[in-house]
Amino acid sequence: MATPIDVVIMAAGKGTRMKSALPKVLHQLGGRALLAHVIDCAARLSARQAVVIAGHGAADVEAACAHLTRAAGDARQDLSLKFARQEPQLGTGHAVQQALPLLADDGVTLVLSGDVPLTQPATLRALLEQCDGQRLALLTLNMADPTGYGRIVRAGTQATAQASSQVRAIVEHKDATEAQRGIHEIYSGIMAVPTRLLRGWIHRLDNKNVQSEYYLTDIVKFAVADGVAVVAHQITDAAQVAGVNSPVQLAELERVYQLRQATALMEQGVRLADPARFDVRGTLQCGQDVEIDVNCVFAGQVSLGEGVRIGANCVIANATIAAGAVIHPFTHIDGEKLGVQVGEGALIGPFARLRPGAQLGAEVHIGNFVEVKNSTLAKGAKANHLAYLGDATVGERVNYGAGSITANYDGANKHRTVIEADVHIGSNCVLVAPVTIGQGGTVGGGSTITKDTPPGALSVARGKQVSLPNWKRPVKVSKG
Amino acid sequence: MATPIDVVIMAAGKGTRMKSALPKVLHQLGGRALLAHVIDCAARLSARQAVVIAGHGAADVEAACAHLTRAAGDARQDLSLKFARQEPQLGTGHAVQQALPLLADDGVTLVLSGDVPLTQPATLRALLEQCDGQRLALLTLNMADPTGYGRIVRAGTQATAQASSQVRAIVEHKDATEAQRGIHEIYSGIMAVPTRLLRGWIHRLDNKNVQSEYYLTDIVKFAVADGVAVVAHQITDAAQVAGVNSPVQLAELERVYQLRQATALMEQGVRLADPARFDVRGTLQCGQDVEIDVNCVFAGQVSLGEGVRIGANCVIANATIAAGAVIHPFTHIDGEKLGVQVGEGALIGPFARLRPGAQLGAEVHIGNFVEVKNSTLAKGAKANHLAYLGDATVGERVNYGAGSITANYDGANKHRTVIEADVHIGSNCVLVAPVTIGQGGTVGGGSTITKDTPPGALSVARGKQVSLPNWKRPVKVSKG
Amino acid sequence: MATPIDVVIMAAGKGTRMKSALPKVLHQLGGRALLAHVIDCAARLSARQAVVIAGHGAADVEAACAHLTRAAGDARQDLSLKFARQEPQLGTGHAVQQALPLLADDGVTLVLSGDVPLTQPATLRALLEQCDGQRLALLTLNMADPTGYGRIVRAGTQATAQASSQVRAIVEHKDATEAQRGIHEIYSGIMAVPTRLLRGWIHRLDNKNVQSEYYLTDIVKFAVADGVAVVAHQITDAAQVAGVNSPVQLAELERVYQLRQATALMEQGVRLADPARFDVRGTLQCGQDVEIDVNCVFAGQVSLGEGVRIGANCVIANATIAAGAVIHPFTHIDGEKLGVQVGEGALIGPFARLRPGAQLGAEVHIGNFVEVKNSTLAKGAKANHLAYLGDATVGERVNYGAGSITANYDGANKHRTVIEADVHIGSNCVLVAPVTIGQGGTVGGGSTITKDTPPGALSVARGKQVSLPNWKRPVKVSKG
Repeated sequence: MATPIDVVIMAAGKGTRMKSALPKVLHQLGGRALLAHVIDCAARLSARQAVVIAGHGAADVEAACAHLTRAAGDARQDLSLKFARQEPQLGTGHAVQQALPLLADDGVTLVLSGDVPLTQPATLRALLEQCDGQRLALLTLNMADPTGYGRIVRAGTQATAQASSQVRAIVEHKDATEAQRGIHEIYSGIMAVPTRLLRGWIHRLDNKNVQSEYYLTDIVKFAVADGVAVVAHQITDAAQVAGVNSPVQLAELERVYQLRQATALMEQGVRLADPARFDVRGTLQCGQDVEIDVNCVFAGQVSLGEGVRIGANCVIANATIAAGAVIHPFTHIDGEKLGVQVGEGALIGPFARLRPGAQLGAEVHIGNFVEVKNSTLAKGAKANHLAYLGDATVGERVNYGAGSITANYDGANKHRTVIEADVHIGSNCVLVAPVTIGQGGTVGGGSTITKDTPPGALSVARGKQVSLPNWKRPVKVSKG
Repeated sequence: MATPIDVVIMAAGKGTRMKSALPKVLHQLGGRALLAHVIDCAARLSARQAVVIAGHGAADVEAACAHLTRAAGDARQDLSLKFARQEPQLGTGHAVQQALPLLADDGVTLVLSGDVPLTQPATLRALLEQCDGQRLALLTLNMADPTGYGRIVRAGTQATAQASSQVRAIVEHKDATEAQRGIHEIYSGIMAVPTRLLRGWIHRLDNKNVQSEYYLTDIVKFAVADGVAVVAHQITDAAQVAGVNSPVQLAELERVYQLRQATALMEQGVRLADPARFDVRGTLQCGQDVEIDVNCVFAGQVSLGEGVRIGANCVIANATIAAGAVIHPFTHIDGEKLGVQVGEGALIGPFARLRPGAQLGAEVHIGNFVEVKNSTLAKGAKANHLAYLGDATVGERVNYGAGSITANYDGANKHRTVIEADVHIGSNCVLVAPVTIGQGGTVGGGSTITKDTPPGALSVARGKQVSLPNWKRPVKVSKG
Repeated sequence: MATPIDVVIMAAGKGTRMKSALPKVLHQLGGRALLAHVIDCAARLSARQAVVIAGHGAADVEAACAHLTRAAGDARQDLSLKFARQEPQLGTGHAVQQALPLLADDGVTLVLSGDVPLTQPATLRALLEQCDGQRLALLTLNMADPTGYGRIVRAGTQATAQASSQVRAIVEHKDATEAQRGIHEIYSGIMAVPTRLLRGWIHRLDNKNVQSEYYLTDIVKFAVADGVAVVAHQITDAAQVAGVNSPVQLAELERVYQLRQATALMEQGVRLADPARFDVRGTLQCGQDVEIDVNCVFAGQVSLGEGVRIGANCVIANATIAAGAVIHPFTHIDGEKLGVQVGEGALIGPFARLRPGAQLGAEVHIGNFVEVKNSTLAKGAKANHLAYLGDATVGERVNYGAGSITANYDGANKHRTVIEADVHIGSNCVLVAPVTIGQGGTVGGGSTITKDTPPGALSVARGKQVSLPNWKRPVKVSKG
């Protein structure tokens, strides 16, 4: 298919039924804007350029395009992204007209919608093959109940019409004869058309209709009149051409999208306890024999090594988890830009939170109600209970006691805590950074450590224990 | 419709299949008793009164009615609620008979069931219009598979019978002819009948049948015999007339109810990540552009301001969350009677718990493993890690350190802690209430503060740090 | 049915589509290996023995059988489990051939598959009745769409064939006539056959087919040729004979299994907020009026007493929870081998974690961010906030303060903490074990207690509180 592809993406609509201040095409599905899915699709087709036709919220739409999350390893960097504006919105034909100045006559124009996120590249490749640089090719859908949709009328009687028959017309439901209403093939809104032909047809459009709009579909009759072949690539998977016009539709497509991702992962061998309770908003790479329990959510870039097990109700984003690690239920990991690393065979959770810059070595244990931020823990270090490690460097085999805290923030600046190898930190300690606990040292429970401690020493900072006998407890005061 | 409406609610059944000590009509759907849904429906019809006919567990049922949660803004306060008892239970006709002394002849009696929670007021209004103060009006359901149900036989041949044709009889499945079994319209158990006619018919009922019960449906034949028009309002939405007889049915209707609530919210613009994992047990009010992630549960009265985002797996009850606030995953909020307030742009969670009387100002941050109870935090105050704030008044911009605790309970009474503006509390501190930390002061990490501290001062209460060199750690004792 | 039953379980397949290092039959459904479900089924049939035919990963399969979790109270202990190996795998007939030396001619051989986990014993009993010690009995399935499956051809014309008609042949889809393709009854892979007949037929099998395998189904034609009656027990519940060949199929059967468990519990009276969000991997016993909120996971042996309420998002394993206890949302309980006991009327969570050996008396309260391990709490003891109790013995009515920790581990050994009745432990204390807090004593907030304290005394170990006026806070250092 040597003909260059120019993608035109309709993204001017307001999306009134979304009832949102956000332009419709910027609403998110699978953690990315609807429009981002369409642009990625264009990139995977190796399109020469994509022209986004913005209108409502155009400035927001154009700005967002600069920041669109792209799928790992996609071809987006090679895609030239351009913009046209449609103001006011006078119909689909008028929208495409705004893009014409950016389109060269040697190409095929592929018309997509910014609110139709789940079209597969393979489907569009088949459509482009039908177009073959010279025909008007429509993507059509075979629907069980086509009531209300424009029907695809093909050459020949309905009985003899084949999927290969040429298209004679798109007939609106209200204008359809009884026989035409029996047709189950409808137009999807997606077409591929040689640009040189498109340009001529667009200029022949008029708006003499009830809504006074310029309809792109009117070019079908020009093509038929001009003797240009009109062909269709028919699919049966409605989700691929389903648009998002309301939060209900957005939620429906979100579930379709998630179930497809779940199925793809299962086909790679990932074991999901319940595919209907599984969300990936980004990319999830899994080694062999990964098990993921119910109700987990993944976001950003997450990688799970061989044999990793993720417990129920985990939320994990932007993290690399090495082989054999076990993430217990109710664990929250979000590496944001710094990322989180979990080493081989580490045990995390339940109720653990790993924040940006947590770098855990092999066999590290992070237990319940423990928070780790911007800290490195070497092999075998453990913080099992109710603790905070922030801006810390923790050596091998360190045991960090229950309730202990690195006081990394003095109210103005953040400082580092260094805990050298084989240190044992007692319970409810405070390590006031900057401070270093020397190798093999012990810090007694309840100590607040403000100065460096020598290696091998027992360091304490506590009050003396005293008891007052026969102490009278306060008595409950009646509120009467 | 000037005729007064008197609602009779059948609530005497035992519900054996529920296998519960609780009377059936007190089982909960959407956080309220089944009976409460029916009473609210009566109130929304502006009924003159509702007569609850209790039997099994009558005392419990009647007591519960006094406490039924009512939907916000409903008309319950204008509804006169009365009770009749049916003991023993001798059938539906016998049940209605118990209510007759409370019913005046100028009204229409609308017969509802206390275990049928999802009937919509609009449906009953249509039924009452059919009744029009003079006809016997039955609510009927068109079912795909009516096997086992009593069929609605209408005037005319089956082929010519219309939804507007008069009803000739209700025929039990076992008594039906083959032709009658082809009827898909069944009786729902709900009817509207002029009370003056009902009274006469009820007294003509007998119990000469296999179960020796008095069947209310027998009045259809009296009406026909008396030349009173019998009409039907037919619906197709089975859930509206579905009864709860078992935990399986209760769970089915719970999901129908929740999905309807989810859909209604989405139609208002709320974005739900998964409508099938969303529960509201009370009322949820949402501003524009609210986003709610998977698996959240709301209870009581909850209000979410514009742009609020609720993360996955949150449980939120009786709270008002202002615009722009972000509630991270695994957050538990329950304001119970005192309520919880979360200010504009506040960041809460993950793993935070807000308890009754937590009043958080704008831009307050409450982080992981932090509990707040009966405390006021002014604008910009932060408690980000492993902390407890109970009975505290916290000023603007206070930074409350990791692991710090307000010791509000002396074993007998609760006392308040006051932390004035711009205070910095270090890590693992104990503030023993009653105590005041003066404005702009700093409390050193690990301090137990028992006396008020001066403004602007650094206050500490710690042991001196000492180190014992070459300390010998305990050695593991073998258990052999 | 006096004929002894010998079960043969096909477990030699690799399960390539599982894409796993684990042999297919060891993949888990409902928390147990697929093979364990089949062996339990054999045991519930009171089979004389079960012969597991292993091949791929045979050593792992055989080793795992020794450790298979068995359902409480099943008959597994009476089942003699034997092994045969099929190496290489040359077809189903060849597999059964490997078991023949272990089978005695006085019995009936019941052929099951180790990857078909949901067959019900009642179904197999019906099949064995059809076999009656003398016939070849096939378990068949009536499918809406049988395309691709081997059809059951019965005696008589298709129109007159009855469920009781004898089977003439199993015809592969590709070999079937148009009329045979209209048959909806297919072979399930499960059969019962008198062993003396099986032995002869197995030796007559050949592998002259496209795949050069020995097909067990070929014995049908030998039986017909020999005049042995071939009968079928037909079911319509496809899940009972569905095999697991991929993670997608495993997930599908997991949901079927869980929904069946959920339904069974609801029929006993358990109220589930959402049966589609409910997982039991083991056994769950419930008293009357138990309520379980959405998204809970149970594992191992769990018992819930009358009126127990389990909040949303709990994970509970190996625990006994007494009547009236309330488990709030986000509670994690896992008793592992030691078990966990929760007393009557106890209140646990939210965000609580009970670990092995937690034994909580009546009316104990364990609140948010509290971990309890290997500790006994007597009636009415409370630990409501951010605390750790490990290896502790806690008396009646003890109040264990927020942030307090039992320092049970000295870096080498674990020691016990004893807190006698009516003690009040303040906030952020450390109790360094071994230590005893005498009855009725009070420990002041922030104290580290290293020595036993006398009964009735107020014991403290704190620094003196001092304030440095006009303290200058650190100033933020610019990073430029």
